[in-house]
Amino acid sequence: MQSNPLDTIMNPSSIAFVGASNNVFKMGTIQCLNLIGNGFPGEILPVHPRDKMVLGRKAYASVGDLPYAPDLAVLVVPTRLVPEFLEEFGKIGTRHAIIISGGFSETGTTGRDLERIITEIARRYSMRFLGPNCVGIINTQLPLNLTVAPVHDLNGKLGVASQSGTYITQNLSYLHKHGIKISKAISIGNGADIDIVECLKFLGEDDATKAIALYVEGIARAGDFLDVARWVSSRKPIIAQYVGGTEAGARAGSSHTGAMAGPDYIYKGLFEQAGIIQVNSIEEVFKGGWVLASQPPLKGSRIAVLTNSGGPGTGIATTCNLCKLDVPEFSGEIRDQIGEYIPDQASARNPVDLTFHLDMSILADKLPRIVFDADEIDGVIIHGIIDTGFFNEIYPLVAHVMDIPDGRPVHVPETDLTSLVEMPHKHGKPLIASSFFGKEDHCVRVFHEHDIPVLDAPEKAARAMGILHQYSKIRNRSGLEIPPRMEVPSDARNYIRKSNADLDEYQAKKILKSYGIPTTEERIVITIEDALSAADAVGFPVALKACSSRILHKTEAGMVHLNIQTDDALRKAFLSIREREPDVAILVSEMLHGDREFMAGMSRFRGFPPCIMFGVGGVFAEALKDRTIRMSPLSYHDAYSMIASINANVLLGSYRSMTPVDVDAMAKILVTLGELALHFPVIQEMDLNPIIIVNGQPKVADALIAMQQRQTDA
Amino acid sequence: MQSNPLDTIMNPSSIAFVGASNNVFKMGTIQCLNLIGNGFPGEILPVHPRDKMVLGRKAYASVGDLPYAPDLAVLVVPTRLVPEFLEEFGKIGTRHAIIISGGFSETGTTGRDLERIITEIARRYSMRFLGPNCVGIINTQLPLNLTVAPVHDLNGKLGVASQSGTYITQNLSYLHKHGIKISKAISIGNGADIDIVECLKFLGEDDATKAIALYVEGIARAGDFLDVARWVSSRKPIIAQYVGGTEAGARAGSSHTGAMAGPDYIYKGLFEQAGIIQVNSIEEVFKGGWVLASQPPLKGSRIAVLTNSGGPGTGIATTCNLCKLDVPEFSGEIRDQIGEYIPDQASARNPVDLTFHLDMSILADKLPRIVFDADEIDGVIIHGIIDTGFFNEIYPLVAHVMDIPDGRPVHVPETDLTSLVEMPHKHGKPLIASSFFGKEDHCVRVFHEHDIPVLDAPEKAARAMGILHQYSKIRNRSGLEIPPRMEVPSDARNYIRKSNADLDEYQAKKILKSYGIPTTEERIVITIEDALSAADAVGFPVALKACSSRILHKTEAGMVHLNIQTDDALRKAFLSIREREPDVAILVSEMLHGDREFMAGMSRFRGFPPCIMFGVGGVFAEALKDRTIRMSPLSYHDAYSMIASINANVLLGSYRSMTPVDVDAMAKILVTLGELALHFPVIQEMDLNPIIIVNGQPKVADALIAMQQRQTDA
Repeated sequence: MQSNPLDTIMNPSSIAFVGASNNVFKMGTIQCLNLIGNGFPGEILPVHPRDKMVLGRKAYASVGDLPYAPDLAVLVVPTRLVPEFLEEFGKIGTRHAIIISGGFSETGTTGRDLERIITEIARRYSMRFLGPNCVGIINTQLPLNLTVAPVHDLNGKLGVASQSGTYITQNLSYLHKHGIKISKAISIGNGADIDIVECLKFLGEDDATKAIALYVEGIARAGDFLDVARWVSSRKPIIAQYVGGTEAGARAGSSHTGAMAGPDYIYKGLFEQAGIIQVNSIEEVFKGGWVLASQPPLKGSRIAVLTNSGGPGTGIATTCNLCKLDVPEFSGEIRDQIGEYIPDQASARNPVDLTFHLDMSILADKLPRIVFDADEIDGVIIHGIIDTGFFNEIYPLVAHVMDIPDGRPVHVPETDLTSLVEMPHKHGKPLIASSFFGKEDHCVRVFHEHDIPVLDAPEKAARAMGILHQYSKIRNRSGLEIPPRMEVPSDARNYIRKSNADLDEYQAKKILKSYGIPTTEERIVITIEDALSAADAVGFPVALKACSSRILHKTEAGMVHLNIQTDDALRKAFLSIREREPDVAILVSEMLHGDREFMAGMSRFRGFPPCIMFGVGGVFAEALKDRTIRMSPLSYHDAYSMIASINANVLLGSYRSMTPVDVDAMAKILVTLGELALHFPVIQEMDLNPIIIVNGQPKVADALIAMQQRQTDA
Repeated sequence: MQSNPLDTIMNPSSIAFVGASNNVFKMGTIQCLNLIGNGFPGEILPVHPRDKMVLGRKAYASVGDLPYAPDLAVLVVPTRLVPEFLEEFGKIGTRHAIIISGGFSETGTTGRDLERIITEIARRYSMRFLGPNCVGIINTQLPLNLTVAPVHDLNGKLGVASQSGTYITQNLSYLHKHGIKISKAISIGNGADIDIVECLKFLGEDDATKAIALYVEGIARAGDFLDVARWVSSRKPIIAQYVGGTEAGARAGSSHTGAMAGPDYIYKGLFEQAGIIQVNSIEEVFKGGWVLASQPPLKGSRIAVLTNSGGPGTGIATTCNLCKLDVPEFSGEIRDQIGEYIPDQASARNPVDLTFHLDMSILADKLPRIVFDADEIDGVIIHGIIDTGFFNEIYPLVAHVMDIPDGRPVHVPETDLTSLVEMPHKHGKPLIASSFFGKEDHCVRVFHEHDIPVLDAPEKAARAMGILHQYSKIRNRSGLEIPPRMEVPSDARNYIRKSNADLDEYQAKKILKSYGIPTTEERIVITIEDALSAADAVGFPVALKACSSRILHKTEAGMVHLNIQTDDALRKAFLSIREREPDVAILVSEMLHGDREFMAGMSRFRGFPPCIMFGVGGVFAEALKDRTIRMSPLSYHDAYSMIASINANVLLGSYRSMTPVDVDAMAKILVTLGELALHFPVIQEMDLNPIIIVNGQPKVADALIAMQQRQTDA
């Protein structure tokens, strides 16, 4: 595997820092303070034009004065100085840099030009750099922290790559508060050189990183991203938020990191295909990511819910169900075991509702032992393990009323969680806790120390378990191989070579047919006599349609006549079309009597591989908007998962006694369409709609192939 | 308006407390401690069989020993003692009680019987009670706190009624941490006497309560609930979570409070019709509720987003769009004003991204002044106002490196938020803050003091703004009047009186027609001669269908022949039906050539008014599941909102050059169907599918009316 520049950037043995001074109200200074304060074990070489010492370290007046070429150069300097400094580091032989400074492509044209200039400089010196417009990196294993905020927890498990620096600086104390521990974090900034693809690859190969969290405003190399993510997600979980999918989101992202955004549905397809779990908030990115990083995989869908209160138990149970998890009633055996520990009026069915109870050992030890041990359970959610958090709340009242003198030490019994925190890895089943208390509670602190995730609301615990379930399904995917490339059929090559405009329905179908995609039997005719003999050849009943790429919505334009049974009717239909369009060629098609209609298609989006679509078809397709998308080339897994993921997927089964759709045949159409799109980059768009199901077999009844606008010679 | 028992229960001047002792590890004792400690200003009269003094108050050995009949009796006693104590209080003339004790209908049959017994006792003495199986009440205006947890903030604005006690006890410190302040809270428990309807009414009439939060496991009197909620939601916002809609949720709720749950889609319809904002987590109930209670209404949809970092700004912008809010680019004028305060590379477009900046006055004062003042903005979200939270994080590093001696006081400049916190009410525009810091940060504390909501994640701030937007739409509803009741048409009465089984299509349509619902022209026939003359009368082309309530899915059974053009074809179709069903009556119908198909229907669910459905129709209706539900009687607002809220609502417009659907006519069908359902409780179910659109006019092409199973005489 190719070496990754982040190997050095994340593990430098020496860092030259340009932009730190002794003024502690400057961003660069605070970053350098963090680097020192968080205990970076390597050399730190400040570069400062005047000061001899910076933050207690010997400073160098210029890059040229440095005693040797450091592994990594960090630049926190005014925008205009970036090219010069980069060049100087290039000259002395430093091959890696982090450019914190902003003012590049995120600001508009001038900035974009400047970004191109620094990219050129880097290329000249074979340098690789992170940024510009980023906040740096964190490696909690080294440790190394280049951001403006301190890291509290070392040796974490969650790797982060973010197109927002805030999510690895301003939120670090939030992460600490919630017990979330980072392994490594990378602020990608504008990604002018090292981009999200290399970051993902680095985190995918990093042994300390058990799960990966991504914050995404836009991906420039979607195809490469897909390849890398597909590979990584089979080894470890990836969870991501995408924020560029709306008008305001795209605008904000573009002025933030200059990111190229695309509509939500494309990223949805990309993430699904890549095996990335998509969430809609940064909270879920981090909390979901932490659950994925810290807990053993969920092997089935059966969850035990243990609580000391009915509301959270009910909220967890219902949310589990909504996340496709079961909260099965316990077997009699388990119920009996549980029954020994809980009050009469409490429920032992699952959720277990212990009701108000001051002896925490039941909820925190006795009951978990039973359910972790039970074959009928795959994962455990517990709400309500609390001790000091609650006792310290009520103690002042007790003290007040009972006349306990102020300042008398309170002895609050601390719950013994020693066994509980070991159960997940001992039994290979995940545990997620839910509590309304934070680190002020002793139990929460113990959970945090032992990497048991504590969510601050019941439904979040259930959703986090749902995320583990999603990852299990991703991990268990099969059929991921990309089928061998097809030959280009000569028919297809001929039709496309001849055409400098969009293809008409006849040509489009011929091309599809040459790829083995089933299409209606048909003839193209000009005269009425040919139409009659074509109908004879195809066999009545037939359909008559104007055949021209110019005419959209042919049905509405009166250009489609279906179910023609006789020569007479054919004549009438033929004339009626010709009346409206005197010169148009006419298609005489076999009439399909199907029972369902689907659609498939292809669109291109800048920066993306060809996008293949599948969905409910027919004239109502636009209204139902029930479609999915994947990028070409498609594996058979991709094709089957597209088909399964439309909302109305029940239509593919034996819906209302219809013959089930031959899903293999449908999948083959999708895979082939992807291949076709790769063969002919000149094709801009394809629309196979409807694909009619006759006796379970899909057949393309109408098709459109639009070519890219070519430059015409003036 | 009728007096509400909660008027006294929430504002008693004297409380008898049975179940408190001097053992501080008992639930009753802690509750009584809270009552005393939280400063209840009235009399507290403990009843205890042995102790002369309880928690420093004179105790009475029995209820009979009490010096007078207190306003309210609180029972925290073993289940079996509840009836006896209730009776004793009845005898001395106490008319209000809270039964904390559990062990009633939530535990099964015996418990249900016991619950019936206490309800009987209460009725005998004209007593009203809350519970059993609840944790009590909170009135922060009095103050009065009967729960086991202390209340930290008095004089709040959010009223709570919850079917889980946990959500007004265990989470109280969570609410305090997040700055959420309760006005009054009611733990409904099993709701054996006072139920959620009376609670909602009480909170609706309570002046201190500015918004209402509900946690719902099941509603027994859905019709009454709807009436009250509709009235309340026009005056103040209601936000609710429903957790009984899944298998495990219903099971958990039933063993928690004995609640009768129903499927999610019914509650969704109920809440929409009632003007209740539905959310899916208790966090959103409280945080959304707090935003509704504390902020002025959002008058339009244009949101200004101010941040010091691009990630949160982008997350907020995209989430606003997803919540149907605009984040419009600012006008040149506003951009110029903003430009004066922000660095060159920062964006002034909206979101404003100030980038890393240590002078908080810009984000916390200068920029808000501009956008609050701007006519082009209706609401403001700010992320990143922080001071001590962040400075205290980095101070140790600075101190360490700069050799500042330990313990030297840190002077962290505190941001002046005096103007900002007044802007929302001064300008009549809501402000929502987002911060990764909590009360450890001075800014967050100031926001909390001044009732500015601080959400702990950017997307949550945007969603909360979306909730304000939802409420604006609810507040602005019109057409809420229920149309005057219709007369029962005599035709309908005749058809239904005659029938002791389900009605066939012909009868069903006759009934619909008698209500003025447009149906296909048709004749019912037995002989082929009659069929031929019926076709003559109706006019070719016709449809032929077997007419029997026994045959479901007639199309699949070969019992429907469409588009019959000639006598010959009619004969063939007639015989083909008769071959399969020798005795069946046959319907000769006008053939509708429509361009879209919808469906309407009615179902009954226990405890609910008749449920009226509307959705996409035809044979694919079941697969698309695109439908909405409302309860009868329907206002025209209800009917229009049903029609508008299906996913494929674009179908009702001039979709692909079709004539727009006459929405008034469709609404009338729905309102009338509701009326029909109220007239005839004996009708169990109605199914009008398809309703075909011909030239924009809806016409019922098939209908089924199923009657309730009647007891047959054996």
